[in-house]
Amino acid sequence: MNSPGTAADYTTFLEELVEQAGHIPLEYFRSDLVVTDKQQQGGAFDPVTRADRETEQFIRDRIVAAYPEHGIIGEEFGTTQGDAALTWLIDPIDGTRGFVSGTPMWGVLVGLKQGDECLAGAMRQPYTEETWIGDGSAAHFIRRRQRSRLRVRNQARLTDAIVCCTHPAMYPTEATRQKFLDVIARCRFSRYGTECLGYGMLASGYVDLVIEGGLSAYDIMPLIPIVEGAGGVITNWQGEAALNGGLIVAASCRQLHEEALEYLAF
Amino acid sequence: MNSPGTAADYTTFLEELVEQAGHIPLEYFRSDLVVTDKQQQGGAFDPVTRADRETEQFIRDRIVAAYPEHGIIGEEFGTTQGDAALTWLIDPIDGTRGFVSGTPMWGVLVGLKQGDECLAGAMRQPYTEETWIGDGSAAHFIRRRQRSRLRVRNQARLTDAIVCCTHPAMYPTEATRQKFLDVIARCRFSRYGTECLGYGMLASGYVDLVIEGGLSAYDIMPLIPIVEGAGGVITNWQGEAALNGGLIVAASCRQLHEEALEYLAF
Repeated sequence: MNSPGTAADYTTFLEELVEQAGHIPLEYFRSDLVVTDKQQQGGAFDPVTRADRETEQFIRDRIVAAYPEHGIIGEEFGTTQGDAALTWLIDPIDGTRGFVSGTPMWGVLVGLKQGDECLAGAMRQPYTEETWIGDGSAAHFIRRRQRSRLRVRNQARLTDAIVCCTHPAMYPTEATRQKFLDVIARCRFSRYGTECLGYGMLASGYVDLVIEGGLSAYDIMPLIPIVEGAGGVITNWQGEAALNGGLIVAASCRQLHEEALEYLAF
Repeated sequence: MNSPGTAADYTTFLEELVEQAGHIPLEYFRSDLVVTDKQQQGGAFDPVTRADRETEQFIRDRIVAAYPEHGIIGEEFGTTQGDAALTWLIDPIDGTRGFVSGTPMWGVLVGLKQGDECLAGAMRQPYTEETWIGDGSAAHFIRRRQRSRLRVRNQARLTDAIVCCTHPAMYPTEATRQKFLDVIARCRFSRYGTECLGYGMLASGYVDLVIEGGLSAYDIMPLIPIVEGAGGVITNWQGEAALNGGLIVAASCRQLHEEALEYLAF
């Protein structure tokens, strides 16, 4: 893999990268190490942190080997080459709590951006052997060598929408939590606990909205080229670019996105 | 398979039954039929109802062939032979909303009871190829012909516990919702959206508590022999038998169960 690359080069690189990287957390998933761990958040070095760090290190090494002039921002090891034109974002295990709980609601996220433009992104769920990958103009789902083009469904009305999120406490203030509740009360039904997979389900056309809060850049940037590549719309609650994280709303079509923003914007 | 059976006969029958039955909802899972369906709850015959009914009919036919003198209670087709000594309970797709959303958070549930005694139960998640099965004195996990004995972890303190549930709106009254919130505020963390899989994660030793409400008998009875067979405790919020549904609390050990009941009982 040589640099500089085209969008196709990057997605080819990303697809292989996340598939290979996914084997690392899978070694820890449901293992005795994780099951018997008693560390609280903020405690000492626990097995989940170890899985996170090993996965991110693997991804960093591959990126540095392929694209030595690019920058990297990762959850575990911070920023390297912060002034580079192109930067990779890594969340080695998005949905740590889903991971710790033994459910398949977590994923390995890697994305590439140039300034404020999201060039490519991938999500891998290694237990179910699923990859979602996109470059903003197209997105694909890959499972066991079967590849399909992703397309959101055109669900235009809030009242028919299935909305996903992760946890009722993820909204940073009582006001934002209330806005979230106002929207979901108008939807067909809401699903909790979806983590990064919610954006995959949206890109796949199974759900219509994802409304979340408290996200970091590396939590969301890799998902943007997937959602947009599948024809969806993703912004923050003010309708601005989503790539820096915070309060996020993703929708299967522009009309639904606008309807949700009417309740969410402030 | 001849009747009458021993516990071992029933679990052998159940294991094959749920594995075979699981292929039916899998044909509908993430299919265009389900994705494009616009039916609301209470609407006309939709593809999810069709998947539910076909799965339950398959299970009923197998039970009637093997145990013609037994009773059956199913979500879709109600009760047959209600006065039989032994009764099978069927929830063909538990977690319909997880199913419709494209996530693997749903399962096929079948259980057998004799009066108030839960003899055997099984949960199948066909997309991940996972079966949890138990007879109250032992429980097993089977995936791709690999079989392992299930054992809860001995997590005795609420403050260290991971607690699962499905949806914040599943508690039938404001008072019960508040009791649930009181407990989870004391736990290590809470996971939403787990459906029947939460009980599997508890039996597997990945989580410590499941606290839910609004369950039907066929939602919960098949899970009791799994939780108890793995060494867990499962009752309603008054500490009484769980098999009729309603408000449910499952815990990995008696001490934790008692601590949770202090907040939940009324």
